[in-house]
Amino acid sequence: MNKNDYMKEALKEANKAYIKEEVPVGAIIVKDGNIIAKAHNLKETKKSSICHAEILAIQKACKKLDTWRLINCDMYVTLEPCPMCTGALINSRIRKVYIGTNDKKTGACGSKINLLEDVVFNHKVEIEREIMQQECEQLLKKFFKNLRERNKNGEKRNN
Amino acid sequence: MNKNDYMKEALKEANKAYIKEEVPVGAIIVKDGNIIAKAHNLKETKKSSICHAEILAIQKACKKLDTWRLINCDMYVTLEPCPMCTGALINSRIRKVYIGTNDKKTGACGSKINLLEDVVFNHKVEIEREIMQQECEQLLKKFFKNLRERNKNGEKRNN
Repeated sequence: MNKNDYMKEALKEANKAYIKEEVPVGAIIVKDGNIIAKAHNLKETKKSSICHAEILAIQKACKKLDTWRLINCDMYVTLEPCPMCTGALINSRIRKVYIGTNDKKTGACGSKINLLEDVVFNHKVEIEREIMQQECEQLLKKFFKNLRERNKNGEKRNN
Repeated sequence: MNKNDYMKEALKEANKAYIKEEVPVGAIIVKDGNIIAKAHNLKETKKSSICHAEILAIQKACKKLDTWRLINCDMYVTLEPCPMCTGALINSRIRKVYIGTNDKKTGACGSKINLLEDVVFNHKVEIEREIMQQECEQLLKKFFKNLRERNKNGEKRNN
């Protein structure tokens, strides 16, 4: 599998979030070529702001590997991680993060701030951006367009 | 209860972590004068880098209030939050964070970087620093002194 194939798997996760009326973000973690964790955003479903796709994927990977040190593990995530999730990448020793599309509002891997390259923490995470960028962006745009229409029609806002 | 009383409760949590040979950090969340969540660092016990005291406290508070929006909630935490936990404060709409002692290595509320005052995100968290500073620092110093001695004596390093 190449980078695009892995991001397609993250996109499948994002689609699961979309169906649940969650902001459609998906993340997977790969070690030695194998996908060891898959997750999607469940913030509204779980009623917890901690339940971003990246955090849930890290939790699953830690459980699978029985350690908090995700050595030689890479993450593929459809949207640039926020400060919380970027911090979690550092804390869990993720080797590299492959990002689908950028997040100008809260992206902490270069868009709003850059916690991975501008600040020196105890662990450095590599970044590669814009993998399957259009597909990742389109799914988010479709979600927010629908959300605006639902809000305009006075339907209950879930997000 | 005043600020020091609340921080004493967070310190009790930090002590629980100390007994478990975890880096001794404790956090509580207060709403309308009531402590609605208490937690301590369980990173080694749970084998997950997500399990910092602040994240666990936020998860408990979200469950208690049945929402991800921790409106009018304040956190008392014995050590300055890292980027992950500072991001979680923003994401969960915590009103104010009261910090025990500073963390020069990874503190993201002013020591290493300042995600709450130097960058404008969609939610602003107020900060008050150095509440029961000496007590919070002493507990951490004691922990790391013991850890160094254990390592010197060749005992298994748990942290």
